[in-house]
Amino acid sequence: MKKGKRTWIFATKPSLISGAAVGAQMEKEGPMAPSFDYFFDDMRAGKLSFEMAERAFLQKACNIALEKAALQKEDIDCFLAGDLMNQIISSSFTARDLPCSYLGQFGACSTSAQALLVGAALIDGGFAEKVLCATVSHNASAEKQFRFPNEYGIQKPPYSQFTVNAAGAGVLSSEKSSVCITAATPGRVIDIGITDAFNLGAAMAPAAFDTIKTHLEDMALNFGHYDLIITGDLGRTGHECLMDMLAEAKMEFDSKRILDGGLLIYNTHTQNVFSGGSGCGCSAAVLFGHYLPLLQQKEIRRLLFVATGALMSPVSMQQGESIPCIAHAVSLEVM
Amino acid sequence: MKKGKRTWIFATKPSLISGAAVGAQMEKEGPMAPSFDYFFDDMRAGKLSFEMAERAFLQKACNIALEKAALQKEDIDCFLAGDLMNQIISSSFTARDLPCSYLGQFGACSTSAQALLVGAALIDGGFAEKVLCATVSHNASAEKQFRFPNEYGIQKPPYSQFTVNAAGAGVLSSEKSSVCITAATPGRVIDIGITDAFNLGAAMAPAAFDTIKTHLEDMALNFGHYDLIITGDLGRTGHECLMDMLAEAKMEFDSKRILDGGLLIYNTHTQNVFSGGSGCGCSAAVLFGHYLPLLQQKEIRRLLFVATGALMSPVSMQQGESIPCIAHAVSLEVM
Repeated sequence: MKKGKRTWIFATKPSLISGAAVGAQMEKEGPMAPSFDYFFDDMRAGKLSFEMAERAFLQKACNIALEKAALQKEDIDCFLAGDLMNQIISSSFTARDLPCSYLGQFGACSTSAQALLVGAALIDGGFAEKVLCATVSHNASAEKQFRFPNEYGIQKPPYSQFTVNAAGAGVLSSEKSSVCITAATPGRVIDIGITDAFNLGAAMAPAAFDTIKTHLEDMALNFGHYDLIITGDLGRTGHECLMDMLAEAKMEFDSKRILDGGLLIYNTHTQNVFSGGSGCGCSAAVLFGHYLPLLQQKEIRRLLFVATGALMSPVSMQQGESIPCIAHAVSLEVM
Repeated sequence: MKKGKRTWIFATKPSLISGAAVGAQMEKEGPMAPSFDYFFDDMRAGKLSFEMAERAFLQKACNIALEKAALQKEDIDCFLAGDLMNQIISSSFTARDLPCSYLGQFGACSTSAQALLVGAALIDGGFAEKVLCATVSHNASAEKQFRFPNEYGIQKPPYSQFTVNAAGAGVLSSEKSSVCITAATPGRVIDIGITDAFNLGAAMAPAAFDTIKTHLEDMALNFGHYDLIITGDLGRTGHECLMDMLAEAKMEFDSKRILDGGLLIYNTHTQNVFSGGSGCGCSAAVLFGHYLPLLQQKEIRRLLFVATGALMSPVSMQQGESIPCIAHAVSLEVM
């Protein structure tokens, strides 16, 4: 790391050797359906509660990612995971079944990128050879905890987002493979004063802008370096805010090459998801399920993954606080 | 890291250059009072809510740690913090005032050690030069969230623990200094099936045992290597469980050199804290406030800090789940 810069360069280029995405009915009906590895037909995943179901989603994604990497649980050195549940229980209970070290991560919907960048740092620093990174979100458990149980039928504003039922998991390795993590820019907290807990996209857009700008400046790159920049999950409202901010900053970018996980995972015209998807599992499923295979097939060669998180809680909202937001960027390149 | 071992060795020996401990009235009346840097006389710290007060405790500890290190906020590369509040709002709102990268950590009461070991890895890997690690807990906000508001006057069993009103912060640096982090053993999740949310000490003791045993085996050390092993926060019940487990495993140890933060911070005979203190801020305040100065004065030269965490939530308890626990160990040595 150079003085005064936030971006981390990974000299050994840790590989992302496998990934898995697990969803439910809504995701099966969405445009990303062919990219998922498994769908639970039942939102409860055969469990007694939505929270237990959420955990089952995460476990399934972890198991598929391990299987694709031809690894056993015992081969993993460290499990980095987080979720939206209070005290990240989905992750910690999943860690119970793994014999390796566990470091719980919290970055709300940015957790997938946070886990990847910490994992890449641990491998690059020589502290681990195989790291399993995973996140999950579940619409019913999240709505119940953050807003109102779905059964109440509360109306939502058009700029609100639909928490996905999805888990994503990926395996990082010190062994050489085609898709590598070459650099990462951990985010700083940006809070523009939004106090509407439904308006997360607009709240998070400035954090995405800050991290993308910092990453490009630190690396002395322009937008053209990346085939794609995938943010997640800003939804339609947040994505439009980000486009406006980039335009106002007079940055040269191709708007077709900046896409958002929250808009990719659902058809926002035909599916009842308001401004798009959100939740820890959204950007993770989009990355591990859809874009990792495209990188592996060399259909794209350079991708900047910029997961965004709104770091509020129901208590902070009830106490009138605004929403601290963050975005972490991870640079994935085909070697 | 050697294959099959969980312990990380830090070749560059990152320094712990400053630390701060902040408490309230209960901590001021306890035996560790002289080791604290600051006390809030008011549990609300002049704020409108206990949650806002908790944040004020954390901010104060961070500011004092920076001041002691003669650093400005702008000198910090990365802020690693966590707390017990849902979605770790105390940490994320504190991060809002810092211009550096932020990575939210969750390990319940083990978070202090988790932040230190991730911070040491980031410095050792060359990703940061100065890292601020901090945690906090507040009795009133924690009781309200995890059990019942204190105002209800619920009776507690004798093996329960009292969540401390305390924050601890420490600054890690790549520059050489007397107190270094030489190694760390991130924990794995251990769950022995305890379903009583008051009995956290007994639930966490096996995790502490596992991490201490793993650390000593990985490093080929015996107990005599360390002047002190400080666990936290097992309380009286958990500490006795750990002593029993070490004795049963026929390990050679001096029980006077294995102490627990939850027993050190309060006088369990005169203060109404049941089995002792607990909470993210407990072990952090004991380490940064009390033992870091002893290391700096070379009164002790080798300390193994083993912070323990119970990774359940009120929802997981209500759903009949047992308690997944973890312990992370950090080796601090005078160079």
